[in-house]
Amino acid sequence: MSLSCPRMNQKMIKNPASSFDLNSYLILKRKKVNAFINEILNSAANSSRIVQAMHYSLMAGGKRVRPILCIAASEAVGGNADDVLPAACALEMIHTYSLIHDDLPAMDNDYLRRGKPTCHVAFDEATAILAGDALFTLAFRILSAINLINENNSSNWLRVIHKISFAAGYNGMIEGQMRDIASEGTLLSLKELEDMHSLKTGALIEASIRCGTILGNGSQEQIKQLKIYAKNIGLAFQVTDDILNVEGNPAVMGKAVGTDKNRKKSTYPLSMGLKESKTFATNIVNNALKAIEIFDNKADPLRAVAKYIIKRKK
Amino acid sequence: MSLSCPRMNQKMIKNPASSFDLNSYLILKRKKVNAFINEILNSAANSSRIVQAMHYSLMAGGKRVRPILCIAASEAVGGNADDVLPAACALEMIHTYSLIHDDLPAMDNDYLRRGKPTCHVAFDEATAILAGDALFTLAFRILSAINLINENNSSNWLRVIHKISFAAGYNGMIEGQMRDIASEGTLLSLKELEDMHSLKTGALIEASIRCGTILGNGSQEQIKQLKIYAKNIGLAFQVTDDILNVEGNPAVMGKAVGTDKNRKKSTYPLSMGLKESKTFATNIVNNALKAIEIFDNKADPLRAVAKYIIKRKK
Repeated sequence: MSLSCPRMNQKMIKNPASSFDLNSYLILKRKKVNAFINEILNSAANSSRIVQAMHYSLMAGGKRVRPILCIAASEAVGGNADDVLPAACALEMIHTYSLIHDDLPAMDNDYLRRGKPTCHVAFDEATAILAGDALFTLAFRILSAINLINENNSSNWLRVIHKISFAAGYNGMIEGQMRDIASEGTLLSLKELEDMHSLKTGALIEASIRCGTILGNGSQEQIKQLKIYAKNIGLAFQVTDDILNVEGNPAVMGKAVGTDKNRKKSTYPLSMGLKESKTFATNIVNNALKAIEIFDNKADPLRAVAKYIIKRKK
Repeated sequence: MSLSCPRMNQKMIKNPASSFDLNSYLILKRKKVNAFINEILNSAANSSRIVQAMHYSLMAGGKRVRPILCIAASEAVGGNADDVLPAACALEMIHTYSLIHDDLPAMDNDYLRRGKPTCHVAFDEATAILAGDALFTLAFRILSAINLINENNSSNWLRVIHKISFAAGYNGMIEGQMRDIASEGTLLSLKELEDMHSLKTGALIEASIRCGTILGNGSQEQIKQLKIYAKNIGLAFQVTDDILNVEGNPAVMGKAVGTDKNRKKSTYPLSMGLKESKTFATNIVNNALKAIEIFDNKADPLRAVAKYIIKRKK
């Protein structure tokens, strides 16, 4: 499925269930996710430098997009948040590990992330590499922890582990980062750009939603529609990131803007123009909303998140 | 259990089943492990740079100690090699990832590994970080692959994933590497040295043996005895590594010797003397052999491997 052809003149599909309060939902779920993560890290009962570095990056104020998508997808198919929390938090750990490694001097050499010094700046390079490794390892430890997951559901948890490790691996996130590094200074075609982002960001976002549907025991039809939703919002997320890198407010975002241009990175605004990128983002969010029309109001959080993705300021 | 007090004047316990041919066993099992790894990497159907780097480090001539221990432990409790191959190979991938990251400029800055340029020298630093990440990810993908493992045994595979991710994480291998880096230039006490190695090398060796016993459905008594065996041979492995770094042949080992001394690293020869280190290694291998006296001749491979660990030249 190619998503790279923008269809213009579309407006955002209105949410019929306009009473849904996304802000309260996000606050509630973030609180749940942060409490779970804190409990895990505190149970380390160990104040070693490596645990400090893991804690530093994990609690640096992330938006918790992946955990919330995982929870919201599970709720959409009739599951509940508590049952998927280990998966939701493992996804955030994997996302954070990827950010720590991407920020390293040998990769993007970034100094600021979420408004704070990056892990290798706050600690040191060796600690940052190992903190990334440790967060990734901890994710799989949580996904297989009998005291956290429902052991009667072992085969579903194995499917979740498989889905996440596929998305995070050389056919997904890691290949995306390889292409991102290799493409600096090269103007990619829209297809190449979409493929890169689909691997680098999209794969883990899709996996987040898929894990929610697996653990919520979604039907084949629900899985199919949520896959379309996931593919579209994953891309919308990246297009918006590119737009924010052009016109975002560094104080709000907690990181520098204009860095893509300075690094001669291929972006949607560069490839199709800023205005067209915004229209494109609206179109693909509409595609995502259409894909989940079969769901009842239990999917309202997913609907609201899709709209939030392109309205966000950071 | 402290292992650091050497008891002198012990000779190697003789193996009553002297007919066991370790060399043929190692050749056979390595062939099996390498065939499985090759099959996995070839099924990538992708000749990307990241897969090339993964292949390069994984097929650089490792001894396959962890896979063989996993297989041999499973056989000792009545299991068979084919059932544990996914775990055995995942353990080798995790070991290789740890070597790639340990060799990085920000850590040990090693140029040679197994007689070949290290991954970051043969490729580049970003690729090496990501190749390590990708091997680690692939390990968990294999451990959860329904087409490779016995799904009826889901909860045992979850236990394997948990055991490995615990051993490889901030309470195991990663903390060991943190302490190793922090201790350069400092003379550790024998207790500190043993603790560091128990984390850095011992934890994954213990996990290898434990995974074999889990998948072979070992009894509690068997698990208990194999844990003692594992703890002792894990340490013996490290003591021998330290000894080889003093008096090994670089041409045979495929890496430089004398590097520990140059880096002012704490080692057993430095802490207790070269001769005493050899006696200590013999003693702890004897402890390992005693621990598995309850087993019949299905444990002969484990017995032979224990002796091989201190006789090896590389």
